[in-house]
Amino acid sequence: MLNERREADPRTSRTATRGETVPTVPPASTAAREPAVDVTALLERGRTLATPVLRAAIDRLAPPMDTVAAYHFGWIDAEGRPADGDGGKAVRPALAVLSAEVTEAVPETGVPGAVAVELVHNFSLLHDDLMDGDEQRRHRGTVWKVHGPAQAILVGDALMALANEILLELGTVEAGRATRRLTRATRALIDGQAQDISYEHRDRVSVEECLEMEGNKTGALLACACSIGAVLGGADDHTADMLEKYGYHLGLAFQAVDDLLGIWGDPEATGKQTWSDLRQRKKSLPVVAALAAGGRASERLGEILAADAKSSDIENFSEEEFAARAALIEEAGGRDWTAEESRRQHRIALDALDEIRMPDRVRDQFVALADFVVVRKR
Amino acid sequence: MLNERREADPRTSRTATRGETVPTVPPASTAAREPAVDVTALLERGRTLATPVLRAAIDRLAPPMDTVAAYHFGWIDAEGRPADGDGGKAVRPALAVLSAEVTEAVPETGVPGAVAVELVHNFSLLHDDLMDGDEQRRHRGTVWKVHGPAQAILVGDALMALANEILLELGTVEAGRATRRLTRATRALIDGQAQDISYEHRDRVSVEECLEMEGNKTGALLACACSIGAVLGGADDHTADMLEKYGYHLGLAFQAVDDLLGIWGDPEATGKQTWSDLRQRKKSLPVVAALAAGGRASERLGEILAADAKSSDIENFSEEEFAARAALIEEAGGRDWTAEESRRQHRIALDALDEIRMPDRVRDQFVALADFVVVRKR
Repeated sequence: MLNERREADPRTSRTATRGETVPTVPPASTAAREPAVDVTALLERGRTLATPVLRAAIDRLAPPMDTVAAYHFGWIDAEGRPADGDGGKAVRPALAVLSAEVTEAVPETGVPGAVAVELVHNFSLLHDDLMDGDEQRRHRGTVWKVHGPAQAILVGDALMALANEILLELGTVEAGRATRRLTRATRALIDGQAQDISYEHRDRVSVEECLEMEGNKTGALLACACSIGAVLGGADDHTADMLEKYGYHLGLAFQAVDDLLGIWGDPEATGKQTWSDLRQRKKSLPVVAALAAGGRASERLGEILAADAKSSDIENFSEEEFAARAALIEEAGGRDWTAEESRRQHRIALDALDEIRMPDRVRDQFVALADFVVVRKR
Repeated sequence: MLNERREADPRTSRTATRGETVPTVPPASTAAREPAVDVTALLERGRTLATPVLRAAIDRLAPPMDTVAAYHFGWIDAEGRPADGDGGKAVRPALAVLSAEVTEAVPETGVPGAVAVELVHNFSLLHDDLMDGDEQRRHRGTVWKVHGPAQAILVGDALMALANEILLELGTVEAGRATRRLTRATRALIDGQAQDISYEHRDRVSVEECLEMEGNKTGALLACACSIGAVLGGADDHTADMLEKYGYHLGLAFQAVDDLLGIWGDPEATGKQTWSDLRQRKKSLPVVAALAAGGRASERLGEILAADAKSSDIENFSEEEFAARAALIEEAGGRDWTAEESRRQHRIALDALDEIRMPDRVRDQFVALADFVVVRKR
């Protein structure tokens, strides 16, 4: 059972409980439209262009905030020794520099945008980890756990301010427009976290509420990443809006996959515990979809989760107890629904690209990155 | 003794322990230059213009952040009932709308700037109160105490983002410049709080370090308030820089008075406990100046404060014990030095006004507000 779960891929689920046909192959776009794009090279380009500028930005922080931020980014360990941490997949920087090319600008035009988006993303990680009491991120202690809550608050604040500073010191009209969009995304992030916190205290959350929350927490900043390079390159509002639409729905597709991995993901790949989201009682998409589905499994799941909500002992549940909950979610259709939702959002994202003009090579790369995001395992 | 302390005014101190003559009248500018300016009306104008726009901005926050922010601003009580809270002196809004008139723009031009500055100020209050563990502000429970730490973090974040949003949605080049200056001030605020926290763990802080910290925590945002209306009105960089200089040094003058009130202020006027800063072991200007002065009282003070730093019982010290510490600070010259520093910063502030052109009426009002700031008792 454990092995089977570890092998499970949300894209190739073999159970279809609501009469749906669940494809065992990647979405059509991957097969029909995928060009010869080297996604690894695209991600590497974003990382290579953005990292030195990000490091220079962090160096501006007054001590000890520079050190705390360097720890958070994985550049040093808790004792201050150089480290070669897992900087994440770097999808956002890749998208930001790619978006500059929509306007036929050089990729470098998007770099301040890529860095600003990374700063805002990491501001939200620092504050959210503290609010949520999360002690681990990327296999290491979180900042509030290692350096204390005050540093987590301060450095988060500083990163948010620094994001605006990096953009506005460009001194151009485009930078003002980019900052305005970034500020809107930042507010959405904060709204999403506020919703996430309030949902924790509720028995039921609708699928619509969950999607709105995930759109705020994940979609809005990815939307900004996908348009900010173009805005800095002088794109008009329609182009920027459509790139935001692509990014927003790609973010929702990404989050749906993340929600599947949060229950059925391989701990070695994700770096999280088994049944991570169930342990945290997260009302993620598979859970809310299963609860909304109705039927025997859905009702049984509702009873169990209502009892769990009152339990102070959930951390000590056995693997089998979590597996039983996951099986009910799957039986009620929550897993399939979420996999299909990921594909649906992926399609909306790709359709948005068709609304605007851009070089074919750039379009192919956006498509390839979208496919990468929905077939990942971590 | 208690009565004498309550009557004491930092500007009319009658003890001069380092051979200095301490004036018993307000600074020269007040007598020689003060025109017929109605400061109360100026403050009221700033408040009247800014408050409706501030309220509309707060209404944009998603629930429950709108309610939490309304509580923080004193518009509702902890149960959500309308309240008529003490909104503070409203010096910053008055300065922001006045600064628009430097460019001969109407005061209303400065309103988005006034609101943005208030939002950033209140972001820092929300986060600082949480980091410092302060349970009371303006005679009421602080947000983290009443609504929980997560709401204090979230709403603080939202106010910082909202400040940029309010400015950038003006969509003008001037708004971009104003936002850049505001972002710089925001970063200084954060640096100042980081310094404040790190100084708490140190035995000695130099006068220079204390002034730098107070410049960051108080000077930078007041500098922004004094220039932001002018920037929105199209002022050139030199004009904006000199208005910032006026505001920065006015902030330091303000803070020096605040530090005096933090030890010798009337609790009924300040809304704080007696000997408030001594109870919190704050390394404020009178303390660091007294410790740096040398001599018998300075050394004795150093010994006592070093012992206090290790004590876990300071909240239970008697009034007499705090009074003895205050007397040593005064005897070592810390009180006089701080009063003189306030006058010195006030003079630098006024000199900056002489570097730029503006209508005489506007200049008179800046002078009157500066005088108001350094003679206040709360």
